[in-house]
Order: sequence, then C-alpha cells, then structure tokens
Amino acid sequence: MVMEDIVKIAEEMVKEQKEISVSEFFEKNRHLLGYDNPTRALLTVVKELVDNSLDATEEARILPRIWVEVKPNGVDRFEVMVKDNGPGLTDKQIPLTLGKLLYGSKFFKLRQSRGTQGIGGSGAILYSQLTTGKPTTIISSIGNGKTSYYELMIDVKKNEPEIVSHKLIEDGKIWHGVKIEMEVEGRYVESRQSVPEYLKQVAIANPYAEIIFEGPNSRLEFLRSVNEMPPLPKEIMPHPHGIELGILRRMLKSTRSRTIASFLTNDFSRIGIGTAKEICNLAGIDPRISPQRLDIGDSEKLFKAMQKVKLIRPPTDCLSPLGEDLITKGLQKEFKAEFYTAVTRPPEVYRGNPFQVEVGVAYGGELPQEGPVKILRFTNRVPLLYQEGDCAITKAIITTDWRRYGLAQSGRSIPVGPAVIMVHLASVWVPYISESKQAIASYPVIIKEIKLALQEVGRQLQRHISGKKRMEMQQRRREIFDRYLPEVANAIAKLTNKKPEPILNKLMSMIKKSTEVIVDGRGKEETGNAG
Amino acid sequence: MVMEDIVKIAEEMVKEQKEISVSEFFEKNRHLLGYDNPTRALLTVVKELVDNSLDATEEARILPRIWVEVKPNGVDRFEVMVKDNGPGLTDKQIPLTLGKLLYGSKFFKLRQSRGTQGIGGSGAILYSQLTTGKPTTIISSIGNGKTSYYELMIDVKKNEPEIVSHKLIEDGKIWHGVKIEMEVEGRYVESRQSVPEYLKQVAIANPYAEIIFEGPNSRLEFLRSVNEMPPLPKEIMPHPHGIELGILRRMLKSTRSRTIASFLTNDFSRIGIGTAKEICNLAGIDPRISPQRLDIGDSEKLFKAMQKVKLIRPPTDCLSPLGEDLITKGLQKEFKAEFYTAVTRPPEVYRGNPFQVEVGVAYGGELPQEGPVKILRFTNRVPLLYQEGDCAITKAIITTDWRRYGLAQSGRSIPVGPAVIMVHLASVWVPYISESKQAIASYPVIIKEIKLALQEVGRQLQRHISGKKRMEMQQRRREIFDRYLPEVANAIAKLTNKKPEPILNKLMSMIKKSTEVIVDGRGKEETGNAG
Repeated sequence: MVMEDIVKIAEEMVKEQKEISVSEFFEKNRHLLGYDNPTRALLTVVKELVDNSLDATEEARILPRIWVEVKPNGVDRFEVMVKDNGPGLTDKQIPLTLGKLLYGSKFFKLRQSRGTQGIGGSGAILYSQLTTGKPTTIISSIGNGKTSYYELMIDVKKNEPEIVSHKLIEDGKIWHGVKIEMEVEGRYVESRQSVPEYLKQVAIANPYAEIIFEGPNSRLEFLRSVNEMPPLPKEIMPHPHGIELGILRRMLKSTRSRTIASFLTNDFSRIGIGTAKEICNLAGIDPRISPQRLDIGDSEKLFKAMQKVKLIRPPTDCLSPLGEDLITKGLQKEFKAEFYTAVTRPPEVYRGNPFQVEVGVAYGGELPQEGPVKILRFTNRVPLLYQEGDCAITKAIITTDWRRYGLAQSGRSIPVGPAVIMVHLASVWVPYISESKQAIASYPVIIKEIKLALQEVGRQLQRHISGKKRMEMQQRRREIFDRYLPEVANAIAKLTNKKPEPILNKLMSMIKKSTEVIVDGRGKEETGNAG
Repeated sequence: MVMEDIVKIAEEMVKEQKEISVSEFFEKNRHLLGYDNPTRALLTVVKELVDNSLDATEEARILPRIWVEVKPNGVDRFEVMVKDNGPGLTDKQIPLTLGKLLYGSKFFKLRQSRGTQGIGGSGAILYSQLTTGKPTTIISSIGNGKTSYYELMIDVKKNEPEIVSHKLIEDGKIWHGVKIEMEVEGRYVESRQSVPEYLKQVAIANPYAEIIFEGPNSRLEFLRSVNEMPPLPKEIMPHPHGIELGILRRMLKSTRSRTIASFLTNDFSRIGIGTAKEICNLAGIDPRISPQRLDIGDSEKLFKAMQKVKLIRPPTDCLSPLGEDLITKGLQKEFKAEFYTAVTRPPEVYRGNPFQVEVGVAYGGELPQEGPVKILRFTNRVPLLYQEGDCAITKAIITTDWRRYGLAQSGRSIPVGPAVIMVHLASVWVPYISESKQAIASYPVIIKEIKLALQEVGRQLQRHISGKKRMEMQQRRREIFDRYLPEVANAIAKLTNKKPEPILNKLMSMIKKSTEVIVDGRGKEETGNAG
C-alpha cells in the first residue's frame, strides 16, 4: 500500500472517533443494568427505586414506609410509582440525582449501603424513556412547606438531565419524602423472579420497613415486625492493606495532611503514630516531609512498607449484619418448617474491604420434600433474584458436601431436600459481576467465608436430622415392644408363676423411661427452634 | 423527628453528592474489565492491545503483523509490549484514544469489530497505573516521516488523559503502526487460560495475521496460513424492527432529512419509498412533514407502524464469518483428530442486530478419550477464555442432547469424549455479560441459533461415529470368518468331494467384497475430512 494512502486512512479513522457518554453506553448495553427482558426490566425498575428509598430513610434515621404501585397500561406497558417517607431531595438537586448516570454520594464512602454506583434510579428513567419515550415525574419535599414537581428526561448524548417541566410550590404542606412515577415496557408475573417475591424478601431482611404494594392483581401489605432500626453503619477510612499503589499516589497528591506521618494517621484506618513512624522507617522516608514531595520511587517504597507492617483489621462498625435472631425470625415468618438455625460469622476483609457473611437454614415441616432446596441470596439487605448460577453464594453452596449434613446431593449441584438456605453478605463494597448487581463475583476469600458459615449451620442441621432419625428408630422399637410386651409378660408370668398384669406394667414403665430420655436429648439439640 | 432536622439532613445529604467519573467507576470495579486476579489481568492487558491492533490493521486493509512481548520485572510484575503494522494514530489523537475511557469510533457503527466500547486500551493503561503507578509509553507514526512519543497516564477524577511527556520528531523514518509499552502487576502462566493459549486461538480464527510472541520462557511464531484478508464488513443503518421508541425519538430530533419519508428511507436499512409511504399511511402521518414536528404521540404511532410493516431482514455484509473451510482448517492445524466438520448458519437478528453462528467439531484421533470435550468460544474472531459457565455458548452446548450424536453426557453437563467443539458468534453488536467481554449474554434467539448449528454438526458427527462402529463390527465379523473360513472350506470340500483351496479363495473374495462396500460408505460420510 502507498504511504500516502496510509496517512489518509489514519486521518480518516481519527475523524470518526468521539466521546461515548455513560448514558449512551448503558442505553446500548441495557442488559448490564438488568433490562434484558420485559419481566426482569419491570422488577429492576421497582428494585432500584425501593433500594434508594430504603437507603434514604435509613440514613436519615426514619422508620421506612414505602408505597409501591404497578398498574397495567396497555399491552406490556406499566405505570410504576414508588413513594417513601425519607428526607426528600432538595429542589436543586433532583435533576442531577435522577437525570444523570454515575452521580451520587455513596460511591465514595466506605460504608455499607444498598446503592453505590449512582446508576440505579437514573438507569430506570433511562429505560423508561427508551421504551416509552416519556419523561418521569418526581415529586418531593424536604419538610420545609414547599413541594417540587419535575418532569425529567436524560439527555443521552450528554448524560445530563433534561428538564421537561419544573415547579416549586410553596403549598405549606409539611411532608418529606420522594414520589417517583414512570411508565415502562415490562411484563408482570408473580412467580419466582417477580416484584411480589422481591418485596417479600425485602420484608424478610428489613423487618423494620413497612411496604405497601398495589399490584395489577392484588394488594400486599408487609407490616413491621420490629420497631427499631439497626444502628447506622459508620463511614471508615481505607485500610492500608487494601489500597493499591495508584490510589496511594493519588491520595498523596490530594491530601490536606502536611506530613507523611499525619497523612498516614489521618487518611487511613488502623495507623497510629507509632505505626506511622515504623512505616516511614521501613521505607527510608522522613516522616516530616510533605506528601506531595514523594516521587514515584518513594511512593512505591512507602506502599511496600505499608503492606509489610502488622496492622489490626479494619473497623467493622461500617457493617450492618442482620444477626442470627433476625434471620431466624425472618425464616420463621415466611416458612413453616420444623427446625431453624442461623450463623453470623465474624467480619473478614477482601482487598481492604470489610465484609461479613450470615447464613440461615429452615428445614422440614411443610417445606416441599421433592426438588432442590430453596436458596435466598442477599447483599446489604437487598434480595438477589437473577443470575443465581453465576453467584459466589451458589458456588459456595454447590461445593459444600451436604450429604454430610443430611441432605441429598449429586456431585456439585444444589442439594435436594425440604430446606431453605438463606445467605447474606454485608460489605462496604460488594463486588458484583455486573452493574445490575444480581450476583457476587467469585473472590476466593468470599467463597471461603460463605462455605465456613454453611458448614456451621450444616453441622447444626445434621444434629437435628440425626436426632430426628434416632427418635424415629426409638419409636419403631417401642412399637415393636408394645406389640410383643403382653406375650413377654405372659411368658414370664407362666415361668415365675405370677400374675401377668404387674409384670406388664413394670415392663411398660421401663420402656417409657428409656424413650423419654431420647426425646429430651433431641430437645436439647434444637436450640433456636421455635417451629 | 423534628421537621427542621429533616431539612438539615436532606441538605446535608445533598452536599455529599458528586459526579463519579467513568475512570473512577471502573478503577473501583476493575473486575468488570477483567482485572480481578493477576493471571487474568495479564491476559486482559495483552488481549485488549492485540484486539485493537487487529481491528486497526484490518480496517486499513493491511495484512496484520503483531509483536507481543511479556518480560518479567520483579515478583508479579511484567513489562508488556504490543506493536503492530497498522495505520498508526495521529499525534493529536493519541491522548484521547488511549487516555480516556469511553472514547472511540466503533461504538456508533453497526459493523462487526472486535472492540466497540472504547474501554479496552485505556482500561489497560488504567490498570497499569493503578498497580505500578507508572505511565504507559506510546510510540506511533502514520507513515508521514514523523514519529510521536508519549508517556501517558489517566486523570482518574476527570477521565481525561494526563500527558507526562510528549515529543513529535521529524525523523524521516517511513513507518506506520503503534507500539505500546506498559508495566503491570500480573502472573504469567502457560496453561488453559493464558497469554500463549489466547494467541494460539487468535491464530486459529485470524489465519491471515502474523503474530510473534516473546514470552518469559519461550518464543512463539504464528505464521500466516492464508495471505488474503476477509472482506471488510460494511457499516449498515439500523433496521426498523430493532430500534426502540426512545432511540427513534432521538433520531427524529437529530436527523438531517427534511421529511418523514426521506428520514425513513435514508436513516434506516430496508425501507424503500413504497414502504415509507405505507408506514406513514398506517401511522396516519403526512410523509412530507418535517421529522422535528412529530410529538410524542405521533412518534409512537410511527414507531408502531414501523413494527407492523413486513420488511426483509437487515443486510449481512456487515458481518465477517470465518466460513466452514477456515474453521475446518483451523481445527486441523491445531488438533490431530480423525474427523472434522463445520457449519456456518445463515444470519439471524436479535434486537435489530444481525448475527451469525458458526460451529466446528474435531473428533477422535489423538484427542484425549477421557474427560469433557474441549470448548473453544469466539466472538468476532476473538477467543473467549474466561466465564465459560456464564456464556450462552456453554448453555447451548449443555442443553443439547449429545448422546444422540455419539458422545457421553450426564444430564445437563458438558459432553464427554475425544472431541473439540468450536463456536463462533459474529455480530455487529455482541451482548456481553460484562465489560470484560468474556461471555455472551443468554438471549434466547442467540442460544437457539447456536443449538441449531450444534445439532447440524452433531448429525454429521453421529454419522461418522456410527459408520465407524459399523466398520468395527464388520471388521470383527471378518476376523471371525477369517478364523473359521479354512475349516468351512474343508467341510465343503469333503461334502462336495472337491479340493479345498478354490473353495477357500472363492469364500475369501466374497467376504472381501462385502467389507469393501462398507468402507466406501464410511468414506463418503467424511466430506471435509483431511485428518
């Protein structure tokens, strides 16, 4: 090829390059946000809005009360409304909060929350306008006697809010909260992966929330079973063992601390002045110099020294686990089983992010005998309904040997039996396999923790099942005795030449005593059983 | 709670909100780009750079020659270099092309290409600076006697290139191409999911590319087996049956066409003037009015009318399938089997995007008898090495009944036997399950097409295997005859009082004839077999 042609081609190719906005990217890749089919899309819209409402109310320490409406409007079209009693959004902030992707406050905080990405709410609006061409209505007040009314769309090319209409009315009404109404393409079902199932699971993991659902076919009310909220998780500083060199370099440049020593103690968790000096010593850096003065070589020395020093684990008040009691109660409320148990593991760390695993199990009773066990997956109190097969929770379950704990299982598959397994991962940063946040990425340390929790509840389950089996065996033995006892008594009576009745009575009381002991033994193993 | 507190809380929460840059988002979610562990990270870096080089050379119609170097530099650190003979990048364009995420030319084109997102190359640079804190070196010329030298980083907060150093030298050297050097944290392996395995599979699907690999332990050269490139796929306009209402509304606003009729014929594929009038008629819209004049109600009417009219499928010269011949040759080159076959399906459409499925199979010979079959997955000529379980290709394979085609299989699992199954999906827009582009999302129409292709090759495989079994049975029968023939001949000789030799010869030629027919029959079934 002639060189002049190459120059032309290269220049031509350059002309076609341009910036792709985040909105354009996710509009085209809408399956990444959970909008790949109409059934899932409707669920995703409700989920994103409810998650935001729960986060907002909890952060403002208000007991959540959330209204959800899904009304059909033609074939495969629905009007969705979600309203909360949260603190509301200020008039000025509404357009950016909901009309721009990648905008929010939770991304930068090391603290457990449902949303983090600043994509959820705006993603729902993006999906609404993509499928119906219509704006979304947002009504909000922060309790100052004024109400904001917005009709909002997203300017996809710019990833900026497009305000179709806006009013701020001083109506004197004193209320606080956000009400969002949008029209979307979707399909409504009531089966496994559905809006009612999602809300039911939300109620299990958030028993302090009141949720009223007005669906196309029915009205559901999930009332509070607890009137107190869990403590608000605290924001923490990054742990030195979890950061990366590139992030450290950026922190060094932008810190307000004047010396390396104060930078280390102020901008990280778990570094006191002694440790800061030890790190500087290891790195051969003067602790009194300015962080901005560190070049790339020094930064790397500092980074390596930070990895070498022994440190206690990150603080864990940034987490808000459900707790064993709440898990057991949640399972009892929803499933009629004969045995319940739960385990909350101590916090662990992956890439510097604290996380905590909890597992609950319900077994027997009215749970279906046939088919695989029911799996309930949660992250930061949010139920996950899709991509079960791709999730670290499922991978941990299928690689656990359940035959050991009394359930049937063939190879590496979901165990079979009358059981529900509930797993909750609480973390300041959950690594999801995609932006739709329906499955946890398979980090080995996370899978390991889940398996440890599963094994703990597994052992309790095994004790229950084997106790039950022992009792059944004892029952059968007793029945046999009962059947033959009169004959035995007669035989003894003949041999000893005594009356058979006293002998029979004596034999019967002996048998009764021995089986009672077994029943008591079983009773002791079922701590936490209220079924 | 007092209302004044709520106002304060709402205002406080607002203050913390801010924009999250795309770079920040993917830096924190780096597992979404394929950087979740050191082994995979090293592969992802090489993959993204090689994919870009192949796209650039092909678009400029230059036979690709690509150099790849991976050199260890300390524990878990590597220097990676990729150089191509493509058209190069203009001096001005280098920073944006590589120093900004979501920037490129391929996102907006309906045409098959490897990259689309404008994330690959810049994502690798982001990973490099995150793990080593160092800039990436880019050297390029477009054949104009000047060479550009850049040291580039990404300003993560702004998602903008940060130029560490820049020179444009008029050195009079006439060359074209791009050379990228970066240092990354990683781990080098040579097993299943590795750089050498990736390059080997690239060579299978791109036999017109020359690739030279200088690894830590060895040098590999993949030479051209074909000296001609496939025709450049053509860019197409969107098909009316694949767009969405929101997109149509945007197109109506931004089109340069002055009437609805010309808008329909110019901005879409497969709409002639007759169809355009039919659509307008159905929608009750005057074809002569300006597209900008359509309100939301009219847009929806137009949209519905577009979905109603019968249209031929989208053009398919936007696709570049490998073809049955190339697939067979590729398999023959890499695997010593006894039987090879391939099928290229006619193009299909999902959400308006043309796509095409191809499947190849190699069987028997020196392929391992034990264990599951080897699966090779490709999209747009790019091998996929990770997330096999989450991929539509795997799902199509495990839900196909392979026992019917002569392979062992237990339930819904990967079939077992001495076989390689290669699947290629070519499309203008591949729906990946995440930005790392390692698995295809499970769209039902895509799974269906893959299954149809698998069934076609399956039937050919079955004919081969059953032919082989027939021949083996025939062989056994012949051996039995051979053993008893002399005795039979002797018996006949005694009964007929003739000499045994002529009888034996006659019997033997009869047997030979009948087995020859069978061997021929088998021969005919093995079209395409060159093993």
